Amino acid sequence: MTTTARDPIAAVREGLAEFTVEVPSWAYGNSGTRFKVFAQPGVPRDPYEKLADAAQVNAYTGAAPRVSLHIPWDLVDDFGKLAAHAADLGVSIGAINSNVFQDDAYMLGSLTNADPAIRAKAVAHHVQCIEVMRATGSKDLKLWLPDGLNYPGQDSLRDRQERLADSLQQIYAAMDEDHRLLLEYKFFEPYFYAMDIPDWGTSLLHCLALGERATVVLDTGHHAPNTNIEFIVAQLLRQGRLGAFDFNSRFYADDDLMVGAADPFQLFRIMHEIVEADAHLPSSRVNFMLDQCHNIEPKVQGQIRSVLNVQEAVAKALLVDREALRQAQLAGDVLGANGLLMDAYNTDVRGILGDLREEKGLQRDPIAAYRASGYQERIAAERVGGHQAGWGA
Amino acid sequence: MTTTARDPIAAVREGLAEFTVEVPSWAYGNSGTRFKVFAQPGVPRDPYEKLADAAQVNAYTGAAPRVSLHIPWDLVDDFGKLAAHAADLGVSIGAINSNVFQDDAYMLGSLTNADPAIRAKAVAHHVQCIEVMRATGSKDLKLWLPDGLNYPGQDSLRDRQERLADSLQQIYAAMDEDHRLLLEYKFFEPYFYAMDIPDWGTSLLHCLALGERATVVLDTGHHAPNTNIEFIVAQLLRQGRLGAFDFNSRFYADDDLMVGAADPFQLFRIMHEIVEADAHLPSSRVNFMLDQCHNIEPKVQGQIRSVLNVQEAVAKALLVDREALRQAQLAGDVLGANGLLMDAYNTDVRGILGDLREEKGLQRDPIAAYRASGYQERIAAERVGGHQAGWGA
Amino acid sequence: MTTTARDPIAAVREGLAEFTVEVPSWAYGNSGTRFKVFAQPGVPRDPYEKLADAAQVNAYTGAAPRVSLHIPWDLVDDFGKLAAHAADLGVSIGAINSNVFQDDAYMLGSLTNADPAIRAKAVAHHVQCIEVMRATGSKDLKLWLPDGLNYPGQDSLRDRQERLADSLQQIYAAMDEDHRLLLEYKFFEPYFYAMDIPDWGTSLLHCLALGERATVVLDTGHHAPNTNIEFIVAQLLRQGRLGAFDFNSRFYADDDLMVGAADPFQLFRIMHEIVEADAHLPSSRVNFMLDQCHNIEPKVQGQIRSVLNVQEAVAKALLVDREALRQAQLAGDVLGANGLLMDAYNTDVRGILGDLREEKGLQRDPIAAYRASGYQERIAAERVGGHQAGWGA
Amino acid sequence: MTTTARDPIAAVREGLAEFTVEVPSWAYGNSGTRFKVFAQPGVPRDPYEKLADAAQVNAYTGAAPRVSLHIPWDLVDDFGKLAAHAADLGVSIGAINSNVFQDDAYMLGSLTNADPAIRAKAVAHHVQCIEVMRATGSKDLKLWLPDGLNYPGQDSLRDRQERLADSLQQIYAAMDEDHRLLLEYKFFEPYFYAMDIPDWGTSLLHCLALGERATVVLDTGHHAPNTNIEFIVAQLLRQGRLGAFDFNSRFYADDDLMVGAADPFQLFRIMHEIVEADAHLPSSRVNFMLDQCHNIEPKVQGQIRSVLNVQEAVAKALLVDREALRQAQLAGDVLGANGLLMDAYNTDVRGILGDLREEKGLQRDPIAAYRASGYQERIAAERVGGHQAGWGA
Repeated sequence: MTTTARDPIAAVREGLAEFTVEVPSWAYGNSGTRFKVFAQPGVPRDPYEKLADAAQVNAYTGAAPRVSLHIPWDLVDDFGKLAAHAADLGVSIGAINSNVFQDDAYMLGSLTNADPAIRAKAVAHHVQCIEVMRATGSKDLKLWLPDGLNYPGQDSLRDRQERLADSLQQIYAAMDEDHRLLLEYKFFEPYFYAMDIPDWGTSLLHCLALGERATVVLDTGHHAPNTNIEFIVAQLLRQGRLGAFDFNSRFYADDDLMVGAADPFQLFRIMHEIVEADAHLPSSRVNFMLDQCHNIEPKVQGQIRSVLNVQEAVAKALLVDREALRQAQLAGDVLGANGLLMDAYNTDVRGILGDLREEKGLQRDPIAAYRASGYQERIAAERVGGHQAGWGA
Repeated sequence: MTTTARDPIAAVREGLAEFTVEVPSWAYGNSGTRFKVFAQPGVPRDPYEKLADAAQVNAYTGAAPRVSLHIPWDLVDDFGKLAAHAADLGVSIGAINSNVFQDDAYMLGSLTNADPAIRAKAVAHHVQCIEVMRATGSKDLKLWLPDGLNYPGQDSLRDRQERLADSLQQIYAAMDEDHRLLLEYKFFEPYFYAMDIPDWGTSLLHCLALGERATVVLDTGHHAPNTNIEFIVAQLLRQGRLGAFDFNSRFYADDDLMVGAADPFQLFRIMHEIVEADAHLPSSRVNFMLDQCHNIEPKVQGQIRSVLNVQEAVAKALLVDREALRQAQLAGDVLGANGLLMDAYNTDVRGILGDLREEKGLQRDPIAAYRASGYQERIAAERVGGHQAGWGA
Repeated sequence: MTTTARDPIAAVREGLAEFTVEVPSWAYGNSGTRFKVFAQPGVPRDPYEKLADAAQVNAYTGAAPRVSLHIPWDLVDDFGKLAAHAADLGVSIGAINSNVFQDDAYMLGSLTNADPAIRAKAVAHHVQCIEVMRATGSKDLKLWLPDGLNYPGQDSLRDRQERLADSLQQIYAAMDEDHRLLLEYKFFEPYFYAMDIPDWGTSLLHCLALGERATVVLDTGHHAPNTNIEFIVAQLLRQGRLGAFDFNSRFYADDDLMVGAADPFQLFRIMHEIVEADAHLPSSRVNFMLDQCHNIEPKVQGQIRSVLNVQEAVAKALLVDREALRQAQLAGDVLGANGLLMDAYNTDVRGILGDLREEKGLQRDPIAAYRASGYQERIAAERVGGHQAGWGA
Repeated sequence: MTTTARDPIAAVREGLAEFTVEVPSWAYGNSGTRFKVFAQPGVPRDPYEKLADAAQVNAYTGAAPRVSLHIPWDLVDDFGKLAAHAADLGVSIGAINSNVFQDDAYMLGSLTNADPAIRAKAVAHHVQCIEVMRATGSKDLKLWLPDGLNYPGQDSLRDRQERLADSLQQIYAAMDEDHRLLLEYKFFEPYFYAMDIPDWGTSLLHCLALGERATVVLDTGHHAPNTNIEFIVAQLLRQGRLGAFDFNSRFYADDDLMVGAADPFQLFRIMHEIVEADAHLPSSRVNFMLDQCHNIEPKVQGQIRSVLNVQEAVAKALLVDREALRQAQLAGDVLGANGLLMDAYNTDVRGILGDLREEKGLQRDPIAAYRASGYQERIAAERVGGHQAGWGA
């Protein structure tokens, strides 16, 4: 690695000092495919147990202090009590995710439905989510819309955009002044012919129409094959509208595998754009969230691995000799510039990260520490009876 | 259309005389995505009611005389009685489909599992299916394997091929001499990193190793984007190993929409390869099956439309002036040859097909006739109570 | 086809009355792949002969009255004389296309190049194109940018966006008040890692920053696999920023085959969105252009076929019973609504279009008429010697 | 990295001891896109100069002792003299590549052409290549076929397979007993509707029909998006028919970028399958070749980087703790098994490889050493005048 006068360890230490990842409550519940959900022993039965599991991820990584909730999956009688429970565990409530894909009414769409009564119902659900935000101190409302068409002609593509704009306007108007609306896009859902928010351009247009507190969510699994995702990151940062990531990995579809598992070099390139814009710092307000499902692998361990993968990618991005890179770029030295990027990527940062953890009083290897802790065996033994949490509840 | 001395109507009449499509019992039950299954009124509660619905498709099209079963979804105490029920309805039992994707044991694979006991269990399930074949008179055992890996390194890609070969050998050995094994391939499953039978090449290699009665199933939704499917049809016909189609449409993934709904020109090109090889005739033993799910649309009507779409594609393929086409091809007349194909495709064959239906005593427009029959309203009214059939049972 | 009280023939006659397609001068020259350019007999040697060929397309279809030019390929000493030559042939000069992909200076980019001198050179080229517009009466300046990166790190993705915005601003400022800037996007170029304008979102953002006379060009071959193009059409129409189409077909890459040859149903769906918004009328100012290369097929005939394919798609879109469709959509009748669309698509419109041509004094079958005219044989015989036009000149 | 009792350095040393990469003569000539070929200073004017450049790659890496030739691009009067020249430079002649894509006769295909005379011409060209093999001592004849169709209906897909089988049989019969035929496949060519050898299945079927000395070439850039290439590697190894790799990188199409530049993790996974099967050893007879074009980057340096990237991937694959991996796989420890693979991938092997180079008397950093050598400046100064080599000659 070309280092000039930089101290790479210091750059990593400083850059990661306040960098955090938000974990999703649903990652600890059961999940599966249209074919089968494989239940796992020890899976939480309620939101309180989900938070307990999420707190483990933070305990071992020191970098996952927030937990996203999903409504209605995480509905509780007393959200103040849930928030206090989180605080006791050393974490806080992050983004509130709405759900308009599991009610019979939404068969032909929610915020875009041709029926005004169904649109009103979907808007009302988001108002309920905003109330949860107030009760939990959350500042981010995240919308992923399953709306779309299965067959050509089924509905008017354009009318649905108008309905969507109108519904979003009502939701935005119901939010508090310190709330943000995070609008996700997705290239496809199985069975669909057309999505109502298929790409970042559509999401951004709606955000621009809404106002400054509306921003785009980039889910790393929601693009067409071969899409250059770091370009979208750079473009949204340039517009000041990158609100959040939903991190995960995909080989084919919306696979929701552990981030960094499918293409670690892509994750590094994304983080390079982030670091280039200083967007890894809290002042950027970019929320780095996981959105994953651990269908066959242990869930807490899968989450820890994911946080580590993000940290390693950021660390490598911080190792890039930005000044040398800029010189090579301006000089048109194609292989030199590419080589500088690859030098950082090829560096094994696990030792540096272990050192930084020790500085913070954490164990060097979070995976090994978690596996040795006996937590997984304990919850498997204790959480017997009741109804395991999953996507249905 | 260039006709020379041919009588196009006669060509269509003759070519379609014995052409039939097999319908799947599961198309009449509820289905959905990993997010939601939308229940529909009137959905069958048991295999007997599924057959009743399937018989409607045959009654209006005159071209769907067989129904595929899925085990264990269609398990009954007395398969002889079920077969007799089918006969009473004017249909017969078609292919028997095994299911190794809904048992906890198969979380890490079935016929390819690293655990010999689980492989034995999966083989035993297929032996059970073979017994259903004997009881129903079915001659085709169809295997679709959900086996694969979610993460790189999770298992040995190569060892799984060896285990698969061994498991298939045992199943093949258990079949009767007039049974066929139909082996399906699939490019991906959501969440997967690698499939154990991802492509026609893998399926064919296993069939070649098994013996003459092992053939490939081509599901039109199971390929990488942009794959030229008619080429695969031609190649498998050339090898004498195209056993069956699973027809459906896709825009993105394994969408299981109505065949011909996404790309009717592709369906026509596929059927052109079939007709060129006279494989639309029963003597070819190619089994033209639907494999679809009607998540949001009425199911019986969706099946009728699908059968019509296949018929129309075959009719257009039969209209191709094969002799003129061959001359243009040999002359290197690129646009002339393409034009001859397009002439047939652009022809509206619905009138011809209406005439042929009238000749057979059927109504001209099966969709209109079915909608007018009141069947849908009747089953919605009568099938109250009980447990609607779906993928889970 | 469901017709209610509509007169479908009248709808097609009226809708197509002023509908025209613009043809590209380069379609008549030689073209090829990185491997090989196959020369064809009779290919034009200069822009005057290109216009003569283009005029044939208009003569037989009556629907192709404009010809796009490409600078510098179509540079002539006296553009006034060229415009007069076009008028004599019954056609006019359409959009002026710039070219920043064949000069050594642009190896690492043109309008986005890190070197200000090269950016200035690229801007100056566009000013030259604007002068050609003034000399020929053209109102549309079309930019397709080959700029991008081959390797990660080669240059700053974000800096290139800033440079692009600045360069475009200079070009826009140089245009006359009745000039439009048409900005094309493209998913990928072979050998590239990142494009500087990869998607409609990026193109639109730059247009919005420039001003009202900047609009997006949608090339039907410039998207990721499986992209829903009609959605983009609807979205750009909704924004009032769909400036033009570059029509062609693709199976895999930017194949530039005849429009409608790969997926005629997709072309129909695109035209359905156009007709739904009355954007097929001249008042919409959407410019329907071909951008194709006829590498192995006869060029004039290929162009005629392409114009016919577009006309047929528009005719089918005009046949859609819009009122019935809207009713079915509002009623949530998924199969009914889809069926109405398919009814129009499945109708053979060639007879109607033949009738309309006869009404206008044209021959019914433009392909047959052109083939019978002897034009192709005449130019092959006459255009001997000289240097055949191609992409290099 | 989990090491148990293994000595990872020794594993890498031993595994790489005889591992070599073959470089292509055409990588040192000019290349480009259908738009533009950017000439570079110092590019070779003849095959002798190409060999000189290729020898540089071997001199600095110690791992590239063979050079593939391309006929007719590398035709010389005296191949014995060329082979002797190679030997003087410390390298030898590798595979002979035929070329049936740059002759007017092949516009509609070569070995699959409908015209028997053109097929005979294409077969004769391969016989010429076999003579070059005899003159140079080459043992591998490599065929990449550009044959395919631009439009549906243009020719019979199936007849072309029969013609291909017949042509290949003639070529195979003309080879010596110690010659191998390497048959490449490719998913698509721009402008194509159908390829005659689009996938590994088709290539393998033809090889099986030919005989034992016919094997498949896997070009890493020749697959549909998202294809799992390491699965194909495993399958072809299992059949004993993986003859060679054509290594390069792609983001979108057949991009021919430096191997390992687009997805280094994929390259590692491929090499893991190779090492699992001991196919990195010369006894496997798998020929690891580069097939790349350096359109905008310095060519010799690009080749050195590519060889290093392959070496690093093999080194990481050799670091995998195979025994521990096998135990985790058999235990169904999904995350443990994946973690073992990632441990090896995340290790920075550049230091180990530098050590091994020093052991062999080479410099630690081949790129730096080459850049410091002044070779590039020397050839740029000396190779003035003459005609730079490229794809055309």
